[in-house]
This record gives sequence, C-alpha cells and structure tokens, in this order.
Amino acid sequence: MRKDPHQRAASELARRCVRCDKTFRPEAPEWVCVSCGGNLDVLYDYDELRRWWSKASLAADTTRSMWRYDAILPRGLIDHMPTLQTGWTPLYHAPQLGSELGVTKIELKDDGRNPTGSLKDRASAMAVAHAISLGQRVLACASTGNAASALAGMCANAGLTSVIFVPEKTPSGKLAQIIAFGSYLVRVEGSYDQAFDLAMAACSRFGWYNRNTGINPYLSEGKKTVAFEIAEQLGWEAPDWVLVPVGDGNIIASVGKGFEELLHIGFIERLPRLVAVQSEGSSAIVDALLGDGVVRPVEVTTLADSIAVGKPRDPDRALRAVRQSSGLGVKVRDSEILEAQSLLASKEGVFVEPSAAASLAGLVRLAAAGDIARDDRVVLLLTGNGLKDTDSVLDRAQLPAPIPASMESLERRLAEDPLGDHSSGIGA
Amino acid sequence: MRKDPHQRAASELARRCVRCDKTFRPEAPEWVCVSCGGNLDVLYDYDELRRWWSKASLAADTTRSMWRYDAILPRGLIDHMPTLQTGWTPLYHAPQLGSELGVTKIELKDDGRNPTGSLKDRASAMAVAHAISLGQRVLACASTGNAASALAGMCANAGLTSVIFVPEKTPSGKLAQIIAFGSYLVRVEGSYDQAFDLAMAACSRFGWYNRNTGINPYLSEGKKTVAFEIAEQLGWEAPDWVLVPVGDGNIIASVGKGFEELLHIGFIERLPRLVAVQSEGSSAIVDALLGDGVVRPVEVTTLADSIAVGKPRDPDRALRAVRQSSGLGVKVRDSEILEAQSLLASKEGVFVEPSAAASLAGLVRLAAAGDIARDDRVVLLLTGNGLKDTDSVLDRAQLPAPIPASMESLERRLAEDPLGDHSSGIGA
Repeated sequence: MRKDPHQRAASELARRCVRCDKTFRPEAPEWVCVSCGGNLDVLYDYDELRRWWSKASLAADTTRSMWRYDAILPRGLIDHMPTLQTGWTPLYHAPQLGSELGVTKIELKDDGRNPTGSLKDRASAMAVAHAISLGQRVLACASTGNAASALAGMCANAGLTSVIFVPEKTPSGKLAQIIAFGSYLVRVEGSYDQAFDLAMAACSRFGWYNRNTGINPYLSEGKKTVAFEIAEQLGWEAPDWVLVPVGDGNIIASVGKGFEELLHIGFIERLPRLVAVQSEGSSAIVDALLGDGVVRPVEVTTLADSIAVGKPRDPDRALRAVRQSSGLGVKVRDSEILEAQSLLASKEGVFVEPSAAASLAGLVRLAAAGDIARDDRVVLLLTGNGLKDTDSVLDRAQLPAPIPASMESLERRLAEDPLGDHSSGIGA
Repeated sequence: MRKDPHQRAASELARRCVRCDKTFRPEAPEWVCVSCGGNLDVLYDYDELRRWWSKASLAADTTRSMWRYDAILPRGLIDHMPTLQTGWTPLYHAPQLGSELGVTKIELKDDGRNPTGSLKDRASAMAVAHAISLGQRVLACASTGNAASALAGMCANAGLTSVIFVPEKTPSGKLAQIIAFGSYLVRVEGSYDQAFDLAMAACSRFGWYNRNTGINPYLSEGKKTVAFEIAEQLGWEAPDWVLVPVGDGNIIASVGKGFEELLHIGFIERLPRLVAVQSEGSSAIVDALLGDGVVRPVEVTTLADSIAVGKPRDPDRALRAVRQSSGLGVKVRDSEILEAQSLLASKEGVFVEPSAAASLAGLVRLAAAGDIARDDRVVLLLTGNGLKDTDSVLDRAQLPAPIPASMESLERRLAEDPLGDHSSGIGA
C-alpha cells in the first residue's frame, strides 16, 4: 500500500476563509477564521503541481484507495494513514435504472463500500492521519451516525481513542459499530445540533482532536477524493451532473473542491453541475439556494438520519460549490427517498441507506421536470450502505408468513402470489 | 472491467465425483454423481494452463475483482458477470491483534467488503453468470442468510428473478437485503436444513437454476478465488495456516481447491494448513475430523447463524480439503466467538458478523494450545460484514444512558466512567 518514498506532494500554500478570504499560513493553528468565524479551505500550489503531476503519472500508480491522490493531499499524511482500505469505490453504470427513468447515462458511485460503510471513512481516515501527525491520541466528533462509526473504526485500526457524541435517536446499526469499535460513547439528549455543540465544547475543554464537520478543514481533503475518483473512473470526462445528498453541506462542498482542483490542474475541462438534494424535513441549504441565499436553521423531521441537520455546519462552502458549478438545489419527500432506495436495490442490486437514496430521488424529480435531459451523464453519489439502517426497510416491508416445509404449501403460496406478478422492491 | 477479448481460459476437462472419482464430461448435465450422489469438482487442463498463464501475465492484469482469475474459471462466464464488483477484497496485517494474542503474523481477509457484505457474493456472481450462459432467468437457493442476500443482489443487478428460501430465524439485516433486492421470499417453518430440502425440490419441480450449496459445482469456482487472492496478496507465499468458519463445508472445500490448483500450476510451492472452525452448537464436520471421519447430523444451537448447519451439504469435500492440507478442526463456544468479534473490531477496526469471527476464536484456541506458533503466518478468513447482524452486538451491549447536552453533565459522566479506564469493545 505504501507509495514510493520519492513521490512528491503539492505544497500547502495556505488556508483561506470561505467568507472573508482571509488566509492563514499552513503552520498557523487556526481551523476557523479568527475574523469572521468562516470555515477554511486548504489551498495548494497548483502551478507547481501541474509541472510534475499528470494523468499519465497517476495511471502508473497502482494504489487503489483515496491515497492514490496523495500528490494533492496534505503532505506527509499518507505516512500515517489507517490501514483500512478507504476509497476507490466502484462506479457502476446503471442501465436498468436508466430505462426506468428515461435517463440513459446514470452512474452510481457506491461509497457504501468503504470500510465502515460510508463516505465518511474518507474524512475519518484523513483525520486520524492528521491527528497522528500532530501527536494526538484522543479524537472526538458529533455525528448523526456515519461520521461516528467511521471515526470509531479508523481510531480502532490506528490504536487511538475515539469519543463519540450522538443524538439519542441514532439507528441501531450505527450504534452497534461504534460500540463494537470500542469508542467512548456519549449519547446526548436532543438532536444532532445539540450533540455537535457539546462535542465542540468538549474538544476545546479537554484538548481532544476535533473531527467535527465543517470546522475541521482537513475532513474535506479526505472527502474531495471521491470527486477525483469519479473523474478518473469516467476517463477524465467530467459528468454533466453529480447529485449529492446534503446535510451539513460538507460533502457537497468537498466534492466541489475536488472538481475545482482538477479543473485548476487541467485534468478536466469543465465542472460538473452539482445538485444539492435535501429532504423536505431538513432543507436549510436548499431553502437558501431556492430563496434569498441565507441559510436559516430549520426544524428537522426527516427519517433520512444521515442528512437530518437543522443547523448546517458548512453552509457557505456548500452554497459556493453549487453556485460555482451552475448547480441546483432540490427538495424531496421522505416517501420519494424510500421509493428511490427500493429502485436502486431492485433494479441494480445496490442497497443504500435512505439518506444515500436521496440523490436518486433528486434525479427522479429533475428528470421529470426536464432539468436533466435524457442523454446527460449523471453521477449519483451514494453515501452510505443500506445495512446501516435495515429497520428502515423492515418497518415498511410486509414479510410473507412462513410456510410449512412442504411442496404442497409452496405450490399454494405460488398460486396465491405468482412469481411472474411479483413486483420488485420494498413495495408500493 | 472487461478483459481483453484475446484472453484465453483453461479448458474444462471434466467434473469428478469427490466420493467415487467417477467423471463427467463438461457438457454432461449432471451436477451430482449419478452413481453415488457425491458432489463434483470442476477440473481443468492444468498442464495446458501452465504453458501460457504465469504470475507475470497476471501481474499485468488490471482487473481488480474475482474475474482477474478468469483463466482458471469456467470458460466464457466472465462475459455474463454481474457488474457488481466482487472479490479482490483487502488483506490486512493485524499487528494489534497480534500483540494481544502473541501471534505476530496475522492477516485478515476481509470478505465482508463484497457487494452484499459476504464471501457468498463470489459464488452468487458465478451462479448468475452460469445461469445466463444457460439461458435461465429464475434462480433459487436456500440460505441461512448470506447466500440469499448475495443471490438476491446479483440477480437484481443482472435483471433476473431470485426465489429465496430462508429459515424463519434469519437476522433482520439479511432479510432487509433480500426484500430490498426484490426477491421472491419464501420463509420456511423450521431450520436451514428444512429450507434446503424444499428449495432442492422446488428447483427440480419448476426448473429453476439451482444455487444450492454443495450440489452446484460452480459455486466453488467462485469461492475458490478467495484463495487465489490470499496467495497473490501475500506475494505468492502460501501462509502457514488459513482459518475458515465452517457450516456446510463448501467454503473451506473451495479454499482448499483454490490452493491446490495454485500448487498444480506452480504458483505456490506448498499448501497452507486449513483449519475448519465450527461452533460447539453446530459441529458436524469438526466432530468427524476429531472422531471417526463420519459426518453425522447434529442439533443446531449456535447464535452464529451463517454457520448454523445441522446437516452439512458439502461434507466430503470439506474433510478432504482439511486432510489434504494436513489441517485441523477446532470447536469454539459461542461466547468465544463473541469475544473474538469484539477483539477484531476494537483492535483492528474490522467489524464482522459472529460467524466470521469464529476464525479468530479458533486461532485463540490453537495459539493457546501451542498448535499455532508465534511466528506462523496465519490468515483469518472473515466471511461476513458485522452490519449483517447488528442485534448480536446490541443485545449484549450496555448502552450508556443519554446525558443532557451540557458540559456539567459530560464532566460528571467522565468522572464516573473515565476515558483512560474505558476498555475497548463490546465488553466482558
């Protein structure tokens, strides 16, 4: 897995505030802007990078993980990466889904195939490597579940301690992972937003490494690798659209940063249009995109727990990513999310958690509205594995009654409910 | 993903009965021996293969899935493979686990990273390709869960119909997958053994493609690829030991076949010793290994559902694989399996289902007994993802009570249950 030690990496030039453009030297301790409180982007010397990094040199690299792109990741962190193989997840063409929707070029980026089952593994792998480089041994975060299990797994792998703050209502699959990985679990009465504030205060109080979304600029450096992979897996042809489930906004901001960096260094020739998809029950960022551009906290009611965020923690960078790419925001109903989950599984054999299926629900809306055309190339970012939250399926499934183990019983069942009539998926 | 069309594949010579050595021509319809009822092995022209296939030609192959080895898989099936990326799962060195156990060279083969979360995806991908090559559109199997979700997912991906027979007591995670993938689900009153018999009868009655374990010789052709990967990932040095959780015996038989084929064609110089690990509550094959060599049905009581098999369906080939490799059988208690699950997750960040952790439980026993030495290279085959059965963790976990979202409450919690004293994992 380790790279050639002669491999170079881009120079980190600065961190820059998304709101006021104030910059901080790489060695400065600030993670958020001291002037305005905005989140920071990590910037590299892209001109230098262009001189020695090319698609050809990348093609010769046999690394099959997010660390394949270490030339444009924080320098030296690859030396501290967890050994869990993270990133380089499959990108599947989805012809059956395409026929169903009348959009012929759908590609599924299945990030549920990461070590703990979600895209958040990319961020947590980077956080763990960063913490080790700083000599820190205790890492903490608040999470709706996926970031927590990712941090818990990566810390277990690296022999570090994780302290995880989760809202009371976290799906059992995610809690099971956190417990199994041996984290110090803090269940917080209330919502994700309250767990987040307590985690922030705790990192500050106890000096723990802060893996909270938005304020830690290095998480994006992990997450942006999914954009690199999409572009490379499509032969460096940017797709027309990338649809992204949005909660805090950090994933879509990172995807945007990834594509922008590829454009800067000349690996792609245009940006894909990014679509922020949110549940109607958690739509602070899309409301801002569709309205006056101001992100206001909302009451959260969605069942899509990974994107259930009342007060997004990376709103400015999320809005910027959508706008810079001439993208869109779209809201979907929870029922549409569940139908999309069923479609993905039954038409393509890719089982994702409800939040991840929001990207497909968004495509269904935009295709019906004519915003996305029949021949557009569309990538759906599938952010989490369906096994994370099996209750969401079982709660609405009508399990067939058991039958006695006899051919007579089987024939009776087949007569009542014929095979040919059996429609796929979780149901209407 | 597709290979160079000029790629050749080994000639299939025959299928041979494991019991009486009777052979059947490749085009013969038989899947089990007409003389004695024994299961069949698919044999290739290994001499021919040696003339044109080499480690070097394989090293030049960029395919990163089980189909990388299509030279030694049933000819032409690669053209019908499901698109879900199956196989080429990570092999991790496990230094922290090694320190814990005093066995320094432990490698984890994490087959829970397959598309539907288990090693069974290898068999189901092969079955789907085989069914398509035969023009069949309906595939059926009985399963304790993993083979079912694998077949369901692969069929959904390929646009085929799956009929799944499961025993009543199947963990909800696995049922959720089967339902989401749109299978025709038949829940059978009673055990896996009864579901199996009904599935066999149904395939025969309705002409469905039979993906039942043991009697279908092509499933092994998929599963054996895990042995190829282990050998290649270790630089073609066979490990000293490979520990395999055993239910029907088909996986360990396939692992044995894979290593034997590599030995035949000169890719490795010796066989690893295979260890069959079973739960004390489902130990038919290990009982035979430790006793008089006769496999007798047992009453099943284990919680490790994927290896809960009273009447194994591939016993002869399983016993042969262990004996030919000078291997061992070992029984472990369910409590040891659960401790092993906790150890794997908390020491290495690899979360597996209980059945998969049986391999580690076996290692703990054999290391304590001195059968496995400190410097032996040991591969643990981890057959299924922990997210398949999160109840097994949650049922025994003591979830901490939620705390109010205040620093005062957090400090009180940390005083009562200090971070430093916090021991990892699911607990004692």
